[in-house]
Amino acid sequence: MIKVGIVGGTGYTGVELLRLLAQHPEAHLEAITSRKEAGMAVSDMFPNLRGRVNLKFQDPAEAPLHRCDVVFFATPNGVAMQQAKALVDAGVKVIDLAADFRIKDIPLWEKWYGMTHACPELVAEAVYALPEINRSEIKGARVIANPGCYPTAVQLGFMPLIEAGAIELQGLVADCKSGVSGAGRKAEVATLFSEASDNFKAYGVAGHRHLPEIVQGLSRRAGASVGLTFVPHLTPLIRGIHATLYARLTKEVDLQALYEQHYASEYFVDVLPAGGHPETRSVRSANFCRIAVHRPQGGDTVVILSVIDNLVKGAAGQAVQNMNILFGLPEATGLQQIPILP
Amino acid sequence: MIKVGIVGGTGYTGVELLRLLAQHPEAHLEAITSRKEAGMAVSDMFPNLRGRVNLKFQDPAEAPLHRCDVVFFATPNGVAMQQAKALVDAGVKVIDLAADFRIKDIPLWEKWYGMTHACPELVAEAVYALPEINRSEIKGARVIANPGCYPTAVQLGFMPLIEAGAIELQGLVADCKSGVSGAGRKAEVATLFSEASDNFKAYGVAGHRHLPEIVQGLSRRAGASVGLTFVPHLTPLIRGIHATLYARLTKEVDLQALYEQHYASEYFVDVLPAGGHPETRSVRSANFCRIAVHRPQGGDTVVILSVIDNLVKGAAGQAVQNMNILFGLPEATGLQQIPILP
Amino acid sequence: MIKVGIVGGTGYTGVELLRLLAQHPEAHLEAITSRKEAGMAVSDMFPNLRGRVNLKFQDPAEAPLHRCDVVFFATPNGVAMQQAKALVDAGVKVIDLAADFRIKDIPLWEKWYGMTHACPELVAEAVYALPEINRSEIKGARVIANPGCYPTAVQLGFMPLIEAGAIELQGLVADCKSGVSGAGRKAEVATLFSEASDNFKAYGVAGHRHLPEIVQGLSRRAGASVGLTFVPHLTPLIRGIHATLYARLTKEVDLQALYEQHYASEYFVDVLPAGGHPETRSVRSANFCRIAVHRPQGGDTVVILSVIDNLVKGAAGQAVQNMNILFGLPEATGLQQIPILP
Amino acid sequence: MIKVGIVGGTGYTGVELLRLLAQHPEAHLEAITSRKEAGMAVSDMFPNLRGRVNLKFQDPAEAPLHRCDVVFFATPNGVAMQQAKALVDAGVKVIDLAADFRIKDIPLWEKWYGMTHACPELVAEAVYALPEINRSEIKGARVIANPGCYPTAVQLGFMPLIEAGAIELQGLVADCKSGVSGAGRKAEVATLFSEASDNFKAYGVAGHRHLPEIVQGLSRRAGASVGLTFVPHLTPLIRGIHATLYARLTKEVDLQALYEQHYASEYFVDVLPAGGHPETRSVRSANFCRIAVHRPQGGDTVVILSVIDNLVKGAAGQAVQNMNILFGLPEATGLQQIPILP
Repeated sequence: MIKVGIVGGTGYTGVELLRLLAQHPEAHLEAITSRKEAGMAVSDMFPNLRGRVNLKFQDPAEAPLHRCDVVFFATPNGVAMQQAKALVDAGVKVIDLAADFRIKDIPLWEKWYGMTHACPELVAEAVYALPEINRSEIKGARVIANPGCYPTAVQLGFMPLIEAGAIELQGLVADCKSGVSGAGRKAEVATLFSEASDNFKAYGVAGHRHLPEIVQGLSRRAGASVGLTFVPHLTPLIRGIHATLYARLTKEVDLQALYEQHYASEYFVDVLPAGGHPETRSVRSANFCRIAVHRPQGGDTVVILSVIDNLVKGAAGQAVQNMNILFGLPEATGLQQIPILP
Repeated sequence: MIKVGIVGGTGYTGVELLRLLAQHPEAHLEAITSRKEAGMAVSDMFPNLRGRVNLKFQDPAEAPLHRCDVVFFATPNGVAMQQAKALVDAGVKVIDLAADFRIKDIPLWEKWYGMTHACPELVAEAVYALPEINRSEIKGARVIANPGCYPTAVQLGFMPLIEAGAIELQGLVADCKSGVSGAGRKAEVATLFSEASDNFKAYGVAGHRHLPEIVQGLSRRAGASVGLTFVPHLTPLIRGIHATLYARLTKEVDLQALYEQHYASEYFVDVLPAGGHPETRSVRSANFCRIAVHRPQGGDTVVILSVIDNLVKGAAGQAVQNMNILFGLPEATGLQQIPILP
Repeated sequence: MIKVGIVGGTGYTGVELLRLLAQHPEAHLEAITSRKEAGMAVSDMFPNLRGRVNLKFQDPAEAPLHRCDVVFFATPNGVAMQQAKALVDAGVKVIDLAADFRIKDIPLWEKWYGMTHACPELVAEAVYALPEINRSEIKGARVIANPGCYPTAVQLGFMPLIEAGAIELQGLVADCKSGVSGAGRKAEVATLFSEASDNFKAYGVAGHRHLPEIVQGLSRRAGASVGLTFVPHLTPLIRGIHATLYARLTKEVDLQALYEQHYASEYFVDVLPAGGHPETRSVRSANFCRIAVHRPQGGDTVVILSVIDNLVKGAAGQAVQNMNILFGLPEATGLQQIPILP
Repeated sequence: MIKVGIVGGTGYTGVELLRLLAQHPEAHLEAITSRKEAGMAVSDMFPNLRGRVNLKFQDPAEAPLHRCDVVFFATPNGVAMQQAKALVDAGVKVIDLAADFRIKDIPLWEKWYGMTHACPELVAEAVYALPEINRSEIKGARVIANPGCYPTAVQLGFMPLIEAGAIELQGLVADCKSGVSGAGRKAEVATLFSEASDNFKAYGVAGHRHLPEIVQGLSRRAGASVGLTFVPHLTPLIRGIHATLYARLTKEVDLQALYEQHYASEYFVDVLPAGGHPETRSVRSANFCRIAVHRPQGGDTVVILSVIDNLVKGAAGQAVQNMNILFGLPEATGLQQIPILP
């Protein structure tokens, strides 16, 4: 059994990690920390876990994280970079669900995240781990940068065309819609039910932190600099991201065949039949990404639709998938639940 | 492996049965029927099942139901009573998720359901199967009447007080709230998103078909006739029933201890600590019933709060639980998924 | 034109007062205060008011409240009682939308609200103003205690039976469901979209502050002490309260005729035809209360269904109705918008 | 008073017309027709209208439409084209809220709408009436083609840039999100609460009927053929359209100034301050369009955000605005209600 610790488990990625790991046949939850809620039973905060998770939140200073095989950071940005080094040095694998190790360009990271990076040396070593793109790099990693939710949906959507060299690399558009859980479990007026329900809006059009992460990922794969306009929107659903992607074709390709072949052996990526429209609920609570590709009116604009559950494939599920890879388990171990519909 | 057939799988209880059975370690889906959708791949209708359920809907006449070990009827009322006899005679267990076998009093059933019963002889034999109440009767049954959603939440809520003889049997009130999936997957104006969202209403106050079912169940257990006012409401959530139950105490009891002891050995019934308020989402997508009991201001009115997922403990999950009992499996087999929250 | 001031306009009752008063033909908004947001344009906080309300929030110390004819307090409990005296002394009418002047029994108020009352002398004078019950008392009042949202729906629902002396006064049940806006525009985890959406729960079963308010109102009218069990629930809609009321009949009455006659001349109370089920959306954004009365199976339990918009008839709309009465205007002035449906 | 008739008032544009016209100071509702519901009181179908609209649905054959000054068609596509001619000949103005008179190119219309046009002669005469674009043409019209919901939001969003000649006319992208009421009040599985709630999806990517309408409008104004990719999405809100528009700049312009000046004198179009993000709820139930314009990272891609209430500015409100123009009334007559928020 893999001994697992979770740092900062009081948010939505935390409870989702708990749900997945408590049902994982090869993982054992050793500790979960929260400075603020130390001493509280986890299931008092998350009643879905009653009878299934008997841990209490522990003060980070007292939790036996160094005795774990792997520690997940489900913390705000800026926490993992403070604590990862000591764990890594103690032989503990680190999987950060926040953004601390995602951007290789430290000054760029510091600009977007508004803080000085505390551990640049681990950034270089850390593996940005989107298994369907760079599975082989993940296996031996000591520090995993788990991708952001939007970046997962967008990169999986664009990647086949990027790799095929079939689109203009400038002028890409990612029009993305997220459920409200993506904003986390923080007390804020903007995400109150009475504000976010029966309402739809864009946000961060001038610039969102996931933009440099997506650009880095696409550019690396393209071998050239990519130009992207990224517009996130808040939509009144709890879970789900729908990315609608636009690119201009530069050569004739059989789009459907390209996507089907690209993802033929990927358990977690499902290419819909031609003409399909993936729904966010078709992946609700599960680690799948479903994708459809369209070429409206046979023009030169290709439209890709890509959906994930932001808390699963966009966060906790992908983190567990990465853990499975790190420990040599079949990649889908503990991640095979069927999505909940309706 | 138990060979399973499903009759009429195009509704919400159908897809939920498929989700649960496809993940059940001891069940194998043999056939699913739909007169209307014969030939269509199940996963074309329910995209959450893509890659997991490869069956096509079959015409009932052609499906190999007689070779199954058990057949679930996820059909409208009045279908199972036509077909159950032939299956039972062929040695196939029948679990009806509709109401055909729930009411022992045939004229009463015919009054509430507005049709002549086609198979009264099986009604007498059928077991109304709410495992936490009459587990032992279920084991040898040939025909299972799976309880309705409201009746499950209400009976589990009242039962400890009924068995303790601690309340007036007249003047009981069950104020129940249901998510919209309880109305099924039928094209109807009243359950359109634009009608049911951001809206709350009572319905069927003059009389709802679950009333005689609840009264029958409570009266049988009380050994006396019970008087109940039952008011169902439609609430804008997909899944979930919240029953708020009111009764007048006739003697002093330690309510918390009564409930905890009554359900101490029940895996699927969770009594919250004193002062608790169960939320429907704490059982979303899972087979649990969570209950809290209150005595406001120490008066003689007791308030019981009981929540289930109407599609799971209120339908498909309880049906699988009953299947497990019928076939001698541990009762929680295939039903241990943790509820989805948020 | 009536010169109007609003103290504390950054919550939902505040924006609703602004919406109603900005469209009121006889009112002129003079000032709106907020200590925290002083200097901010009101329409920057509430974009629906862009182009219609050009006020800025003012610091309470600087706002010309004493020059107003009437000041509304849309503040948390405990604020109006600090400031009302000075305004009243200056000849300004005060309408408090919070609870400071609702409960005549000061120790009872102090127990439920957990603070010492700062102005008991005005409590005695203040008129608890539910126009359909005590319109005549309102006319000459200097201080108006605007009723709470639940109390409005519950009292309007029970009143015809109370006045007819047709029910047992003990054992009343008010099972109430509220939209989330009733919890206000405060940053709290419990009312986040991801917590409150697709979820239903009871709260405050042990005791809610609206209980003594309702009991006071019903008892006064009954001329005897009333016993009530009050269970509020949170339901995933923005606006709306649905009260489901239960009482035991003590004599034969024509319920439908009783209700129709009782409210025959009330513009804002609509008694549905026999058998009706009022929906919360049928009063969304408007000052109406719609009521239906049922006697299921002809038994001795009467069920009353009563719906209001908690922000309008349950708060800002009723406050404007009270203002109209205070200033001798037709009661429906500025309150005649048709509810929004769908 | 303008005598008004409505043909086909049982849908959402019908009830919205009724709500607006019943509150319109210069309009009088003469008749409303429905073949199916003839004899039913309008307020029995739409309880928000109780006490405010006392009409009954009449059979179209019996309704005094010819005595009206104006008749609105709130009917499915293909109805108005059958009946408009007779009304026009009788001197009655016709405002069609469906698509019968929107597309000037008859074969194109017939291709997209799948039927033969019954009245091509009126198509040539009809005015496609988006007041902010072609107000002057509307005044003398006999037949008004009221624009579609998506086309209203998209055209108002693109128009300043189109008229300024500042963008590439090929490669435009309109990524649009609609509330579910846009699908109408038809009993269909796809728009059930349990299907559309907590879910997000694109639809009609291969081709949606509003595409040729938008292209016609933009091209006419551009004086050249426009190339547009239009992707509509269904989002779980009742009312609201959010159009996110993408175009490539071909010359330097002060975007904020361009938009502010373009709409400076338009009562119903509100350009937000620079950096703004309009929310659909900021126009809920009102006839406004709110727009913001962005140029992320100073690149050559401009992003326009445009929101309307699909039932008001996208249908019934714009129809009333057009009626006001036709009859020489101030354009905002009866359309000045403040949006409902929250």
